[in-house]
Amino acid sequence: MFTLHPQLAADTETIATLALSRILLMNDSRYPWLILVPELPDLRDLHDLEDEDYNIVASEIRNVSTRLASHFSADKMNVAALGNMVPQLHIHIIARFASDAAWPKPVWGVGNAESYTPEALSERKQQLTALLDGL
Amino acid sequence: MFTLHPQLAADTETIATLALSRILLMNDSRYPWLILVPELPDLRDLHDLEDEDYNIVASEIRNVSTRLASHFSADKMNVAALGNMVPQLHIHIIARFASDAAWPKPVWGVGNAESYTPEALSERKQQLTALLDGL
Repeated sequence: MFTLHPQLAADTETIATLALSRILLMNDSRYPWLILVPELPDLRDLHDLEDEDYNIVASEIRNVSTRLASHFSADKMNVAALGNMVPQLHIHIIARFASDAAWPKPVWGVGNAESYTPEALSERKQQLTALLDGL
Repeated sequence: MFTLHPQLAADTETIATLALSRILLMNDSRYPWLILVPELPDLRDLHDLEDEDYNIVASEIRNVSTRLASHFSADKMNVAALGNMVPQLHIHIIARFASDAAWPKPVWGVGNAESYTPEALSERKQQLTALLDGL
Protein backbone atom coordinates (compact mmCIF):
# COMPACT_ATOMS: atom_id res chain seq x y z
CA MET A 1 0.00 0.00 0.00
CA PHE A 2 1.21 3.48 -0.79
CA THR A 3 1.79 5.84 2.11
CA LEU A 4 3.44 9.21 1.65
CA HIS A 5 6.78 9.43 3.46
CA PRO A 6 6.31 11.48 6.66
CA GLN A 7 9.08 13.92 5.70
CA LEU A 8 7.37 14.68 2.39
CA ALA A 9 4.06 14.99 4.18
CA ALA A 10 5.59 17.47 6.63
CA ASP A 11 7.30 19.65 4.00
CA THR A 12 4.57 19.87 1.37
CA GLU A 13 0.94 20.50 0.51
CA THR A 14 -1.02 18.36 -1.93
CA ILE A 15 -1.94 20.15 -5.16
CA ALA A 16 -3.31 17.48 -7.48
CA THR A 17 -3.54 13.78 -8.19
CA LEU A 18 -2.70 12.64 -11.70
CA ALA A 19 -3.12 9.19 -13.22
CA LEU A 20 -0.23 7.73 -11.23
CA SER A 21 1.29 10.53 -9.23
CA ARG A 22 0.45 12.87 -6.43
CA ILE A 23 1.68 16.42 -7.01
CA LEU A 24 2.96 18.22 -3.94
CA LEU A 25 3.94 21.83 -3.40
CA MET A 26 7.14 22.31 -1.43
CA ASN A 27 6.46 24.79 1.33
CA ASP A 28 9.37 27.03 0.37
CA SER A 29 8.30 30.35 -1.07
CA ARG A 30 11.74 30.99 -2.60
CA TYR A 31 10.95 28.79 -5.61
CA PRO A 32 7.94 27.44 -7.49
CA TRP A 33 8.78 23.89 -6.45
CA LEU A 34 6.61 20.86 -7.10
CA ILE A 35 7.29 17.27 -6.16
CA LEU A 36 5.79 14.38 -8.07
CA VAL A 37 5.31 11.15 -6.14
CA PRO A 38 4.08 8.04 -7.95
CA GLU A 39 1.46 6.52 -5.65
CA LEU A 40 2.83 3.01 -5.75
CA PRO A 41 4.46 1.15 -2.87
CA ASP A 42 8.13 0.28 -2.48
CA LEU A 43 9.64 2.52 -5.16
CA ARG A 44 13.08 4.01 -4.62
CA ASP A 45 14.58 4.66 -8.04
CA LEU A 46 12.96 5.90 -11.23
CA HIS A 47 13.92 2.67 -12.95
CA ASP A 48 12.00 0.66 -10.33
CA LEU A 49 8.82 1.62 -12.19
CA GLU A 50 7.47 -1.05 -14.52
CA ASP A 51 7.59 -0.15 -18.24
CA GLU A 52 4.06 1.12 -18.56
CA ASP A 53 4.11 3.02 -15.28
CA TYR A 54 7.50 4.50 -16.15
CA ASN A 55 6.09 5.91 -19.36
CA ILE A 56 3.11 7.39 -17.55
CA VAL A 57 5.31 9.01 -14.90
CA ALA A 58 7.70 10.33 -17.58
CA SER A 59 4.73 11.90 -19.30
CA GLU A 60 3.45 13.38 -16.04
CA ILE A 61 6.87 14.90 -15.37
CA ARG A 62 6.86 16.43 -18.81
CA ASN A 63 3.38 17.88 -18.51
CA VAL A 64 3.96 19.38 -15.08
CA SER A 65 7.32 20.82 -16.11
CA THR A 66 5.88 22.35 -19.28
CA ARG A 67 3.05 24.10 -17.48
CA LEU A 68 5.20 25.30 -14.60
CA ALA A 69 7.89 26.66 -16.94
CA SER A 70 5.36 28.46 -19.07
CA HIS A 71 3.30 29.90 -16.24
CA PHE A 72 6.27 31.29 -14.34
CA SER A 73 8.42 32.11 -17.40
CA ALA A 74 11.20 30.12 -15.78
CA ASP A 75 14.76 30.62 -16.92
CA LYS A 76 15.38 26.92 -16.42
CA MET A 77 13.57 23.89 -15.11
CA ASN A 78 15.32 21.57 -12.69
CA VAL A 79 13.98 18.02 -12.77
CA ALA A 80 15.57 15.59 -10.36
CA ALA A 81 15.07 12.25 -8.65
CA LEU A 82 17.62 12.21 -5.83
CA GLY A 83 16.17 10.64 -2.69
CA ASN A 84 19.33 10.24 -0.67
CA MET A 85 17.56 11.55 2.44
CA VAL A 86 13.97 10.49 1.72
CA PRO A 87 14.21 7.13 -0.02
CA GLN A 88 10.64 7.05 -1.33
CA LEU A 89 10.72 7.82 -5.06
CA HIS A 90 9.90 11.47 -5.63
CA ILE A 91 10.77 13.79 -8.47
CA HIS A 92 11.53 17.46 -7.91
CA ILE A 93 10.24 19.82 -10.60
CA ILE A 94 11.49 23.31 -9.85
CA ALA A 95 11.18 26.54 -11.80
CA ARG A 96 14.49 28.35 -11.56
CA PHE A 97 15.39 31.96 -12.19
CA ALA A 98 18.72 33.72 -12.62
CA SER A 99 17.52 35.94 -9.77
CA ASP A 100 16.58 33.19 -7.31
CA ALA A 101 18.14 32.44 -3.92
CA ALA A 102 20.36 29.57 -5.04
CA TRP A 103 21.11 30.34 -8.68
CA PRO A 104 23.13 28.92 -10.38
CA LYS A 105 23.51 26.24 -7.73
CA PRO A 106 21.01 23.45 -7.17
CA VAL A 107 18.44 24.41 -4.52
CA TRP A 108 19.16 21.64 -2.04
CA GLY A 109 21.08 22.66 1.04
CA VAL A 110 21.17 26.37 0.16
CA GLY A 111 19.90 28.47 3.07
CA ASN A 112 16.69 27.53 4.84
CA ALA A 113 13.22 26.99 3.46
CA GLU A 114 11.03 30.07 3.77
CA SER A 115 7.50 28.88 4.47
CA TYR A 116 4.62 30.60 2.71
CA THR A 117 2.37 32.73 4.90
CA PRO A 118 -1.06 31.08 5.28
CA GLU A 119 -2.54 33.56 2.79
CA ALA A 120 0.25 33.16 0.25
CA LEU A 121 0.09 29.38 0.62
CA SER A 122 -3.63 29.31 -0.02
CA GLU A 123 -3.23 31.55 -3.06
CA ARG A 124 -0.30 29.56 -4.46
CA LYS A 125 -2.20 26.29 -4.00
CA GLN A 126 -5.23 27.63 -5.85
CA GLN A 127 -3.03 28.97 -8.62
CA LEU A 128 -1.20 25.67 -9.09
CA THR A 129 -4.30 23.52 -8.82
CA ALA A 130 -5.77 25.60 -11.66
CA LEU A 131 -2.52 25.40 -13.60
CA LEU A 132 -2.47 21.58 -13.49
CA ASP A 133 -6.18 21.21 -14.19
CA GLY A 134 -6.90 18.64 -16.87
CA LEU A 135 -3.62 16.73 -16.56
CA MET B 1 23.46 21.17 -35.77
CA PHE B 2 24.36 19.51 -32.48
CA THR B 3 27.64 20.46 -30.88
CA LEU B 4 28.59 19.33 -27.39
CA HIS B 5 28.90 22.24 -24.96
CA PRO B 6 32.61 22.96 -24.39
CA GLN B 7 32.25 22.61 -20.60
CA LEU B 8 30.79 19.13 -20.97
CA ALA B 9 33.48 18.28 -23.50
CA ALA B 10 36.16 19.42 -21.04
CA ASP B 11 34.79 17.52 -18.03
CA THR B 12 33.90 14.20 -19.62
CA GLU B 13 34.86 11.30 -21.84
CA THR B 14 32.55 9.74 -24.40
CA ILE B 15 31.43 6.22 -23.52
CA ALA B 16 28.71 5.36 -26.00
CA THR B 17 26.20 6.69 -28.49
CA LEU B 18 22.62 5.48 -28.15
CA ALA B 19 19.71 6.08 -30.54
CA LEU B 20 19.38 9.72 -29.54
CA SER B 21 21.89 10.41 -26.83
CA ARG B 22 25.60 10.52 -26.29
CA ILE B 23 26.70 8.97 -22.99
CA LEU B 24 29.55 10.72 -21.24
CA LEU B 25 31.62 9.73 -18.24
CA MET B 26 32.23 12.54 -15.76
CA ASN B 27 35.93 12.64 -15.01
CA ASP B 28 35.42 12.47 -11.26
CA SER B 29 36.54 9.19 -9.74
CA ARG B 30 34.53 9.79 -6.55
CA TYR B 31 31.32 8.56 -8.18
CA PRO B 32 30.25 6.36 -11.09
CA TRP B 33 28.75 9.37 -12.88
CA LEU B 34 27.36 9.33 -16.40
CA ILE B 35 25.82 12.20 -18.32
CA LEU B 36 23.31 11.62 -21.09
CA VAL B 37 23.15 14.30 -23.79
CA PRO B 38 20.49 14.09 -26.50
CA GLU B 39 22.31 14.91 -29.75
CA LEU B 40 19.79 17.46 -30.97
CA PRO B 41 20.36 21.18 -31.28
CA ASP B 42 18.86 23.93 -29.15
CA LEU B 43 17.57 21.87 -26.22
CA ARG B 44 17.58 23.34 -22.72
CA ASP B 45 14.83 21.62 -20.76
CA LEU B 46 13.69 18.01 -20.79
CA HIS B 47 10.26 19.11 -21.95
CA ASP B 48 11.80 20.80 -25.01
CA LEU B 49 12.05 17.34 -26.55
CA GLU B 50 9.30 16.47 -29.01
CA ASP B 51 6.97 13.67 -27.89
CA GLU B 52 8.67 10.83 -29.68
CA ASP B 53 12.17 12.00 -28.81
CA TYR B 54 11.15 12.53 -25.19
CA ASN B 55 10.01 8.94 -24.96
CA ILE B 56 13.26 7.68 -26.47
CA VAL B 57 15.36 9.76 -24.08
CA ALA B 58 13.24 8.67 -21.11
CA SER B 59 13.86 5.09 -22.12
CA GLU B 60 17.60 5.71 -22.52
CA ILE B 61 17.73 7.25 -19.05
CA ARG B 62 15.99 4.21 -17.64
CA ASN B 63 18.25 1.72 -19.37
CA VAL B 64 21.46 3.47 -18.38
CA SER B 65 20.29 3.92 -14.79
CA THR B 66 19.26 0.28 -14.50
CA ARG B 67 22.58 -1.05 -15.71
CA LEU B 68 24.66 1.38 -13.67
CA ALA B 69 22.71 0.65 -10.48
CA SER B 70 23.00 -3.08 -10.95
CA HIS B 71 26.66 -3.14 -11.93
CA PHE B 72 27.80 -1.01 -9.02
CA SER B 73 25.21 -2.23 -6.50
CA ALA B 74 24.33 1.41 -5.89
CA ASP B 75 22.49 2.38 -2.74
CA LYS B 76 20.57 5.00 -4.73
CA MET B 77 20.53 6.43 -8.22
CA ASN B 78 20.45 10.18 -8.69
CA VAL B 79 18.89 11.24 -11.99
CA ALA B 80 18.80 14.96 -12.67
CA ALA B 81 18.42 17.53 -15.42
CA LEU B 82 19.62 20.78 -13.86
CA GLY B 83 21.62 22.83 -16.36
CA ASN B 84 21.80 26.10 -14.49
CA MET B 85 25.47 26.44 -15.35
CA VAL B 86 25.63 24.55 -18.64
CA PRO B 87 22.38 25.32 -20.42
CA GLN B 88 22.61 22.52 -23.00
CA LEU B 89 20.20 19.76 -21.98
CA HIS B 90 22.09 17.02 -20.18
CA ILE B 91 20.92 14.45 -17.68
CA HIS B 92 23.11 13.32 -14.81
CA ILE B 93 22.86 9.63 -13.91
CA ILE B 94 24.92 8.98 -10.81
CA ALA B 95 25.35 5.84 -8.72
CA ARG B 96 25.36 6.90 -5.08
CA PHE B 97 26.57 5.11 -1.98
CA ALA B 98 26.04 5.75 1.70
CA SER B 99 29.85 5.76 1.90
CA ASP B 100 30.50 8.27 -0.91
CA ALA B 101 32.10 11.72 -0.62
CA ALA B 102 28.87 13.74 -0.67
CA TRP B 103 26.28 11.38 0.86
CA PRO B 104 23.51 12.17 1.66
CA LYS B 105 23.87 15.49 -0.13
CA PRO B 106 23.64 15.91 -3.87
CA VAL B 107 27.08 15.70 -5.51
CA TRP B 108 27.16 19.15 -7.07
CA GLY B 109 29.36 21.68 -5.34
CA VAL B 110 30.72 19.23 -2.77
CA GLY B 111 34.51 19.30 -2.74
CA ASN B 112 36.47 19.15 -5.96
CA ALA B 113 36.37 16.62 -8.76
CA GLU B 114 39.07 13.97 -8.46
CA SER B 115 40.19 13.09 -11.96
CA TYR B 116 40.84 9.47 -12.81
CA THR B 117 44.46 8.51 -13.39
CA PRO B 118 45.05 7.72 -17.09
CA GLU B 119 45.07 3.98 -16.31
CA ALA B 120 41.94 4.11 -14.16
CA LEU B 121 40.18 6.24 -16.77
CA SER B 122 41.00 3.82 -19.53
CA GLU B 123 39.81 0.89 -17.40
CA ARG B 124 36.61 2.65 -16.32
CA LYS B 125 35.80 3.60 -19.92
CA GLN B 126 36.21 0.02 -21.10
CA GLN B 127 34.11 -1.26 -18.23
CA LEU B 128 31.28 1.19 -18.92
CA THR B 129 31.39 0.76 -22.68
CA ALA B 130 30.93 -2.96 -22.10
CA LEU B 131 28.20 -2.30 -19.54
CA LEU B 132 26.14 -0.22 -21.97
CA ASP B 133 26.72 -2.54 -24.92
CA GLY B 134 23.54 -3.32 -26.80
CA LEU B 135 21.55 -0.29 -25.61
